[in-house]
Amino acid sequence: MEGHQVRALYDFTGEPGTSELSITAGEVLSVMRDNVGDGWCEGFNQNGKSGLFPAAYVQIIETPTSVPNAMISSQQSSGDYWDDDWDDDSEVGQTQAYIPQQQQQQQQQQHMLQLSQHHSVDYDLVSIQTIHSVIPERPIPNIPKKNNKFSTLIKSGEDSFLLGMKVANVPESEKIYIDESENGRHRWVSRGELYSCVVTSPKKESKLKGLKSFIVYQLTPTFNNIQVSRRYKHFDWLHERLEEKYCFIPIPPLPDKQISGRYEEQFIEHRRTQLQEFVDYVCRHPVLARSRVWEHFITCTDEKRWKAGKRQAEKDELLGVNYFNAIQCPETTLDVIKVEIQTDTFSRFISGLDPVVKNFMAMAVDQTKKNQVLYKREFQKIGQSFNALSHALEGDDSSRGRLTYALKVTGDAYNDIGKLYEEQPKFDWEPLADKFHIYKGIINSFPDVISIHKTAVQKRKDYEKLVSEHKMEPQQLRDLSHRTDVIARALLAEEMHFQTEQEIYLTQTMKTHLTEQISFYQKIVDKLREALNAYEE
Amino acid sequence: MEGHQVRALYDFTGEPGTSELSITAGEVLSVMRDNVGDGWCEGFNQNGKSGLFPAAYVQIIETPTSVPNAMISSQQSSGDYWDDDWDDDSEVGQTQAYIPQQQQQQQQQQHMLQLSQHHSVDYDLVSIQTIHSVIPERPIPNIPKKNNKFSTLIKSGEDSFLLGMKVANVPESEKIYIDESENGRHRWVSRGELYSCVVTSPKKESKLKGLKSFIVYQLTPTFNNIQVSRRYKHFDWLHERLEEKYCFIPIPPLPDKQISGRYEEQFIEHRRTQLQEFVDYVCRHPVLARSRVWEHFITCTDEKRWKAGKRQAEKDELLGVNYFNAIQCPETTLDVIKVEIQTDTFSRFISGLDPVVKNFMAMAVDQTKKNQVLYKREFQKIGQSFNALSHALEGDDSSRGRLTYALKVTGDAYNDIGKLYEEQPKFDWEPLADKFHIYKGIINSFPDVISIHKTAVQKRKDYEKLVSEHKMEPQQLRDLSHRTDVIARALLAEEMHFQTEQEIYLTQTMKTHLTEQISFYQKIVDKLREALNAYEE
Repeated sequence: MEGHQVRALYDFTGEPGTSELSITAGEVLSVMRDNVGDGWCEGFNQNGKSGLFPAAYVQIIETPTSVPNAMISSQQSSGDYWDDDWDDDSEVGQTQAYIPQQQQQQQQQQHMLQLSQHHSVDYDLVSIQTIHSVIPERPIPNIPKKNNKFSTLIKSGEDSFLLGMKVANVPESEKIYIDESENGRHRWVSRGELYSCVVTSPKKESKLKGLKSFIVYQLTPTFNNIQVSRRYKHFDWLHERLEEKYCFIPIPPLPDKQISGRYEEQFIEHRRTQLQEFVDYVCRHPVLARSRVWEHFITCTDEKRWKAGKRQAEKDELLGVNYFNAIQCPETTLDVIKVEIQTDTFSRFISGLDPVVKNFMAMAVDQTKKNQVLYKREFQKIGQSFNALSHALEGDDSSRGRLTYALKVTGDAYNDIGKLYEEQPKFDWEPLADKFHIYKGIINSFPDVISIHKTAVQKRKDYEKLVSEHKMEPQQLRDLSHRTDVIARALLAEEMHFQTEQEIYLTQTMKTHLTEQISFYQKIVDKLREALNAYEE
Repeated sequence: MEGHQVRALYDFTGEPGTSELSITAGEVLSVMRDNVGDGWCEGFNQNGKSGLFPAAYVQIIETPTSVPNAMISSQQSSGDYWDDDWDDDSEVGQTQAYIPQQQQQQQQQQHMLQLSQHHSVDYDLVSIQTIHSVIPERPIPNIPKKNNKFSTLIKSGEDSFLLGMKVANVPESEKIYIDESENGRHRWVSRGELYSCVVTSPKKESKLKGLKSFIVYQLTPTFNNIQVSRRYKHFDWLHERLEEKYCFIPIPPLPDKQISGRYEEQFIEHRRTQLQEFVDYVCRHPVLARSRVWEHFITCTDEKRWKAGKRQAEKDELLGVNYFNAIQCPETTLDVIKVEIQTDTFSRFISGLDPVVKNFMAMAVDQTKKNQVLYKREFQKIGQSFNALSHALEGDDSSRGRLTYALKVTGDAYNDIGKLYEEQPKFDWEPLADKFHIYKGIINSFPDVISIHKTAVQKRKDYEKLVSEHKMEPQQLRDLSHRTDVIARALLAEEMHFQTEQEIYLTQTMKTHLTEQISFYQKIVDKLREALNAYEE
């Protein structure tokens, strides 16, 4: 319902001090974003006051002036994001950058024109579909976001590559290389040296004389050691670019957007570690780490150059299935059966892993909460019981000095253990959950990556039938078959990357987790030893 | 409602395999015992089937044939307990020993006659009251059992000592000595050597060709190393004797009677340790450890002698307030003010300690359950998540042998930690709760012990007034004052014993608890180390 007007079905009272917007049943609102997360929309009311409200509380109003979803979203993609005032970080001040729908339409039309001018094919119905496919539709709220860009791609876009609609010039810098080893293993070829990039010192900044405030994270790549400042909304923009461009690579998810408590120190520090996880994953990926938009993101310090690079990225046509044209790989024909077995096995593996990883992640999140709330409280109850006993005994006889002192030390020790339980998750369960957030996101994206290949395989089967029925030239099948192999090789290379990464990633994750858990329980042992010593003479 | 007929108000379905009795709304039941614990009654239905049912599910039926509570309970006290079939341990077979009410009344009358024959005072209304007072009434169900024998004693019985109704001959073996140190501290004089007594090898025995089965505990005192066999019901009988005899000593409580799961090994072993706590407390008490009935209980191996001793104990007149006659202490007059301050301070101390200790005990019981159920389950959930991940990863690639193996080791480690949580309480929280069961019982009994002295002090004040008004001879006041001092000295000696014991008892209890807790968390550390090692090459 983004860009639409909606009518409030029920009253909703926004929590004061948050960016929630109070709405009244019957009132008309304009939706700016419907995917804020957790079922929230961002929009503004007829007094121009903006904020968040529950999507389930409003109903879309179909008006003649409303434009199709795809158009609005492409406007958003092409809008100057850098200067947008509305974003996930906004907590203070009113939204100002909303562009009236008329203007939106104009921009949209202009954008489509630009696209058509750059397209090598005629501006006909088919190419409109293609354009459509590379500009992902925004998900409809309340329906889980299931990588709908992929399903759109599969429906229409993929054919553009399969059917040989080549992009004329793939610049060298955009080319992606795949190696095949003697035993038939495919891998992405790394260009340049491995590097990393640290996310540091999140700090609060503000603009419009303090009316708007937001958090800025510092990114410093190891290859140049120059720091750049990025906001969450820039990450979000980057993420959208990467998802659009790499349909054959699962893009690691960003941390979830959150509604409240956004300026609490703990939240900010936690988000920093989550963004670090995202950055780490990208840096370790041979293709993503050399992506132009990514390099722009982690290196650009100049605002003008940033804007230029940003516009360029948004105009990039070498994306989605078109980007298969940039893949450079062995020309040999793949063993169809072998590939099918391998991809089927992998597909089943991913399907089996998906619920397990989701459950694991939920367990880690649950343990975080239980440590912080339940266990903490339990140990404090124990502590209080000991302290109360110490106090009750103290009243009577001063000769019991040692016992009452020791009981107090014991009570304090249990209280301290309660505090340890509260603080501990940020060393063990929370990092584990953060790692699994990335891992889960990758696994969740894989079925769509796999299905691009599956669709291609099906297409080849259709062609084989047509050729056998002499309704098609064998050359056409051979061409399609070659292109299917490119898709297969990309999948196999990505699978190999995933498998290798996973092994390292999980091993390191578990080692860190267990080391922290050991140190935690060791701290408990130490606390209790202290208490025990208090009873000795 | 003991001995009464009751009508079931609601249906209740007893759990199969337990001693619970199913009842139907409207049905008439006969109650045999109403203080089984936790709101349960023991009784039988009109088909003669016996068992336990919730007290709240039945309503008393007032019938002309029902006898007063006190009479029935005194019957129970005088019945041949050794051969009684109904007892807490019975789980199998129907109750057979229920004595119809008519017969009960006859026995009761006979018993009262016996008592009157042995009494040194005339069988008049006053002495009936006295008899009444030494035969404790059973508590009315659903009203907390608040040492009602004491309140009865205070109302009537105490006067018999205060007013100088002496028991003629106190045999040497029954005499209790109190020392007063230079600084005015009183203490019980220990006779004989300190000893202990171990409770071991509970075993299941049965009679009536297996129709009835029960648990027998072995008691071996260190002074003769001869083992005797006792059932819970014998402990119960002993406890009743001790409570009757020593109104100036808080008797440690027995473990609670329990309804179900009575033949589970764990329960039996736990009850053994609880009985050991009871036995330990008695052995450490200078007066109780030399008590004739106690010595009979821990030494008698011959059934005939047992029965004789048992009857003798039941006929013992040197009990309750009469037993103050057996106290041998300095003849000097105590400083009234000093004693009042000391006893008031102690009384306040006990009142303050009481809720704290109750809360502490509840905490320990709660932690026992949380460890056994909640924490165990949580760690098993963690374990399952790791095992499931290991399993899901295994499916795909055999090269991930080490990772999947390490994840499985981790899962198993967390499962094992779950098991540790389940087993641990019997080493830390349960013993702590058992110690506090005794401690709590003692503290709970103290107010009644204290109030005997308070009543005496009040009586003295009344006498002082009468003497000042020349309505009484000063000699009478001097006599009463002396006897009040005896009561005070007994209280001061018992307070001293309590304070000394408490210091040792709590220190040892906490040290044991903390040592076990340390070892527990150390075991967790070790388990996690094992898991961590599995990730290393």
